[in-house]
Amino acid sequence: MAELITVEDPADPRLGDYTDLTDVELRRRREPAEGLFIAEGEKVIRRAHDAGYAMRSMLLSAKWVDVMRDVIDASPAPVYVVDPQLAERVTGYHVHRGALASMQRRPLPEAAELVATARRVVVMESVNDHTNIGAIFRSAAALGMDAVLLSPDCADPLYRRSVKVSMGAVFSVPYARLDPWPRSLETIREAGFTLLALTPDEKATALDEAAPHRMDRVALMLGAEGEGLSRRALAAADEWVRIPMSHGVDSLNVGAAAAVAFYAVATGRSGT
Amino acid sequence: MAELITVEDPADPRLGDYTDLTDVELRRRREPAEGLFIAEGEKVIRRAHDAGYAMRSMLLSAKWVDVMRDVIDASPAPVYVVDPQLAERVTGYHVHRGALASMQRRPLPEAAELVATARRVVVMESVNDHTNIGAIFRSAAALGMDAVLLSPDCADPLYRRSVKVSMGAVFSVPYARLDPWPRSLETIREAGFTLLALTPDEKATALDEAAPHRMDRVALMLGAEGEGLSRRALAAADEWVRIPMSHGVDSLNVGAAAAVAFYAVATGRSGT
Repeated sequence: MAELITVEDPADPRLGDYTDLTDVELRRRREPAEGLFIAEGEKVIRRAHDAGYAMRSMLLSAKWVDVMRDVIDASPAPVYVVDPQLAERVTGYHVHRGALASMQRRPLPEAAELVATARRVVVMESVNDHTNIGAIFRSAAALGMDAVLLSPDCADPLYRRSVKVSMGAVFSVPYARLDPWPRSLETIREAGFTLLALTPDEKATALDEAAPHRMDRVALMLGAEGEGLSRRALAAADEWVRIPMSHGVDSLNVGAAAAVAFYAVATGRSGT
Repeated sequence: MAELITVEDPADPRLGDYTDLTDVELRRRREPAEGLFIAEGEKVIRRAHDAGYAMRSMLLSAKWVDVMRDVIDASPAPVYVVDPQLAERVTGYHVHRGALASMQRRPLPEAAELVATARRVVVMESVNDHTNIGAIFRSAAALGMDAVLLSPDCADPLYRRSVKVSMGAVFSVPYARLDPWPRSLETIREAGFTLLALTPDEKATALDEAAPHRMDRVALMLGAEGEGLSRRALAAADEWVRIPMSHGVDSLNVGAAAAVAFYAVATGRSGT
């Protein structure tokens, strides 16, 4: 059971995990280096906890202590109780969800390990926007994708914004890095997957005609908003697929495109 | 051809259309009342202009004058050239896209008029988040929906944030209000549409089994993030459809759900 500690000094070194949360550049370097990530809000903290992540500490305003009591009791991590103004001075923003937790990262699994048991995987290349990463994980979880594989330059799924937008799906969908890129895509192919590259290119097969739900093992490759997949990634794919779109319109947002493609890959698993 | 006017006083009344742009509550009342909306950034301004909206004025930093020269020349509206600091003082934020235009609203068409020629329409109930409205319009345009119908309490598609997130799709997909709600859904049914309510309810038919792409005329009803469609709206539908989802996960984000449903409604128009 955790200790409740009231902290009144914003410079208290025990709050070090929570400083300067609005400085994205700083935090994106610091958090992986120090092996931590930040979960925000009751629901997301519970999901991180339920997924087995160890808690380093929690930072709560007083009224959240009762709400989080069961999580507090289930962990030996210290709980720092602070008033909202102090939380704002430490973190740099108004923590309107009233609860933050600093959690311990775990080593990522190997890609080969994930693809050994998966049937539907998402492969992302250079998706470096935290909101998009989070949205894609959320859709991947809802639509039954088994794992996510990330090129080395994709953004961190455990960054606070990704975690929040994913509604905690980054904890439930296992993921790994693919390095070197794109050569290690071979690992996926060797595991029996068809590599499908999602692209607006007219030479690609329409998604419904490609019928990926009939394929045994599918790895769906997505590029970043705007640029899409690189030439090298496209060359490494087994097949190109596209979402049929109206003429004269910009492509879908990458999150919307991902959701559509996951649906096309998933639907039919029940036999339709 | 427009007049170029350098303005150096942030209180200049000619800049009145651009004041306090960050005050959402104020702007959401003021803009419809005054018959204007704000387009931001070169691409979106061009799309509003190309869609035939009349320009009231433009607010540009000097370096954007050449880029926008053809639009300036094609309109009689005055162009206010200001330095970026002044733009920030007037609007309340750093206008990093460097170009704003105040455009004249047009009267909305009647719902009956839109459904007379459409085959696929989106019906939104109580979607009052500007980002979600914009994202749904963008997907609707890309995936070939013909029109959008909004319950009276949906957010304004011409609010600056909606316009931006939609990438200008709010100018190309025609829309109307449905009032009274939900009674005026009858207008759509009378035009020969099947009203499909999208809901996570287990009693709903899976979207792929419902096969909406085989239906002649489809009106797809969407509710707000979180709450979904109201009981009254669900009761007014002809059929309930759901996106098949994994157990134990939150539903999709409304934007992702909309994109999946539009795809399911659209795909097969080419005969598959």
